[in-house]
Amino acid sequence: MDDAASPSGRGLSRAFVIWDAMRARAPRVHCLTNAVAQAFTANMLLAAGATPSMTIAPDEVAAFAARADALLINLGTLDPERRAAIPRALDAAMERGTPFALDPTFCDVSAARADFARALLARRPAVLRLNAGEFAALSGREATREACAALARETGAVVALTGEVDLVTDGVRSARLADGHPLMAKVTAVGCAAGALIAACLAVGNDPFEAALAGLGAIGVAGALAGVAAAGPGSFAPALIDAIHRLDAETLAAKAHLTLEAAP
Amino acid sequence: MDDAASPSGRGLSRAFVIWDAMRARAPRVHCLTNAVAQAFTANMLLAAGATPSMTIAPDEVAAFAARADALLINLGTLDPERRAAIPRALDAAMERGTPFALDPTFCDVSAARADFARALLARRPAVLRLNAGEFAALSGREATREACAALARETGAVVALTGEVDLVTDGVRSARLADGHPLMAKVTAVGCAAGALIAACLAVGNDPFEAALAGLGAIGVAGALAGVAAAGPGSFAPALIDAIHRLDAETLAAKAHLTLEAAP
Amino acid sequence: MDDAASPSGRGLSRAFVIWDAMRARAPRVHCLTNAVAQAFTANMLLAAGATPSMTIAPDEVAAFAARADALLINLGTLDPERRAAIPRALDAAMERGTPFALDPTFCDVSAARADFARALLARRPAVLRLNAGEFAALSGREATREACAALARETGAVVALTGEVDLVTDGVRSARLADGHPLMAKVTAVGCAAGALIAACLAVGNDPFEAALAGLGAIGVAGALAGVAAAGPGSFAPALIDAIHRLDAETLAAKAHLTLEAAP
Repeated sequence: MDDAASPSGRGLSRAFVIWDAMRARAPRVHCLTNAVAQAFTANMLLAAGATPSMTIAPDEVAAFAARADALLINLGTLDPERRAAIPRALDAAMERGTPFALDPTFCDVSAARADFARALLARRPAVLRLNAGEFAALSGREATREACAALARETGAVVALTGEVDLVTDGVRSARLADGHPLMAKVTAVGCAAGALIAACLAVGNDPFEAALAGLGAIGVAGALAGVAAAGPGSFAPALIDAIHRLDAETLAAKAHLTLEAAP
Repeated sequence: MDDAASPSGRGLSRAFVIWDAMRARAPRVHCLTNAVAQAFTANMLLAAGATPSMTIAPDEVAAFAARADALLINLGTLDPERRAAIPRALDAAMERGTPFALDPTFCDVSAARADFARALLARRPAVLRLNAGEFAALSGREATREACAALARETGAVVALTGEVDLVTDGVRSARLADGHPLMAKVTAVGCAAGALIAACLAVGNDPFEAALAGLGAIGVAGALAGVAAAGPGSFAPALIDAIHRLDAETLAAKAHLTLEAAP
Repeated sequence: MDDAASPSGRGLSRAFVIWDAMRARAPRVHCLTNAVAQAFTANMLLAAGATPSMTIAPDEVAAFAARADALLINLGTLDPERRAAIPRALDAAMERGTPFALDPTFCDVSAARADFARALLARRPAVLRLNAGEFAALSGREATREACAALARETGAVVALTGEVDLVTDGVRSARLADGHPLMAKVTAVGCAAGALIAACLAVGNDPFEAALAGLGAIGVAGALAGVAAAGPGSFAPALIDAIHRLDAETLAAKAHLTLEAAP
């Protein structure tokens, strides 16, 4: 693919090289995620070529986090056990410099969850994935590009704002991804699984901005491919996993609708 | 469809109008359901056009229940956390007049669960969905039409007794639904998901009897449609979700085998 | 099928008769398994013709275990609640002579989990299913045929070591199964579900060695059949369940690559 001639903008499609690097490395990703998303997330990571582990038992998470190459912290269904496990997993990961992605699912519904999410944000996730409502609850600001970039600069986390079009910014660079399919909103845990793919991509390279683009680009392109043949959300879910399993960086770079934007 | 000429009996098929009304409203349904059923139930609700939330964390359920349009309480895998969460969710829902459906799954196996189910029944669910064994454990009576109608009158809950043929009664009206497919019994959580569809239908209209008919009718007709093409229970599950996603009131009214019965 | 002419070795294919006997009996299998595997395991058991129950609530497991025909204890996601529930379920099962299969998932990652697994092994599971890494963590020995046979003799448990080729030994007899498909490693909980199938087969007959061969043979042959048509791991998972649903002893005996070995 000729970057100069592509809609992706010169140089940006190299972010997708991370996808193939991740598949080659098969990183261990430990996920502290919600009960609804656990099986689908594990299957998405396996299909992507990563090696998931999923325990949330407080006694065990440190051992699993210590051997992981990246962590996903997702706050959906935030029960007492997960609250106890998350700091232990983070301690083990931080000690080793293992990156983590934070997904403050539904922090706009529960004030207690928003408080917990803010405390985790202070521990410097590499990527913060959230939607506009969650962004507003967490930051107290409307989810504009400027506000996202400001939050990224303040926290050191790449902000990956998902929606019909995704926005990714590290406060200096900014890009949009316009892929996906309407059925993605009709299958539970697709967004949670996208967070896990970002975490997997964090395990390779040193650029969380590119990792977020690779992870979100992958789920978006796979979603568009899966949507073609699906008869509804039931058949879409396995088709999405099949599409992730087949996806390589070349397809990703060719299909993704990625646009670089001037820094805000 | 001409009601007078249909097997459904004049007037009853209008219950199915609730299905389209529910899809149009996209109600929020908060589910306190068992661990095995959570993902499948969320996917069923999404396919039906509703907006599910699933947390069982005691600290959070009140906030989720307070914004929900209907609640599902399902007692499968009734661990201490769910026991603590359910009354809190009910308090928040009752305060706002939000209806709930109760599914006392497997209360015929565990005496502790039957006791808990009886306490919940006293809080006046709009619909009580259960099978014959669960009915017997809960009420101490055999699951006849008369006993179901009596329990409905005593508790104020519409009784939705599921089996090869489903029976729905509010103590005055009574109807049977004879749809479905044998593979429905070979996929876990289909019954639990049916309870969630009833809860979604409770969010529209003011008639739990019609809501129960709409929810059970929908899963039965979708099951019959999905069963045609399925190669087994593995392919049946996504086909069932696809069929729910496509289903509208017109198809429901045309396909459902619904018969009105004289009040017992 | 003519045993003498088959690659299975004379007499061994009769182990597969257990598969049909299990389907005919529809045994109740209570599963204390990890959160990620619960739904897939329940669906696998239903497809196989068994009747699963899945609660892990400490207050309830005794009642469910008491009525079960076999138990599965799987240690993936070993949280405090599961730790409390497992001994209670075992007490109820042991009292009635109900057999159990033990799957010490990931006991090679967490030392606490390996300790717990060793304590459970002392309670004499009928079958111990594990991979080479888990075997080494549990026994302190490399997973050779000799070491597996020695562990079987020491513990009284049939050792079912899964890998590219599966090894089953009771310390006297020894057999290998070489079926399956690479996509089985790309779907979460396939191994856990295999453990559940072994548990279901334990409910019939009196020979855990044959039950382990039947359960592992079934998942391996079903995997090979499902792999033919699957477009990836997403479509493989439902195809695997469909294949288990269709599988009978005759197909199993005809397709399985089972070889008897001299006792080590």
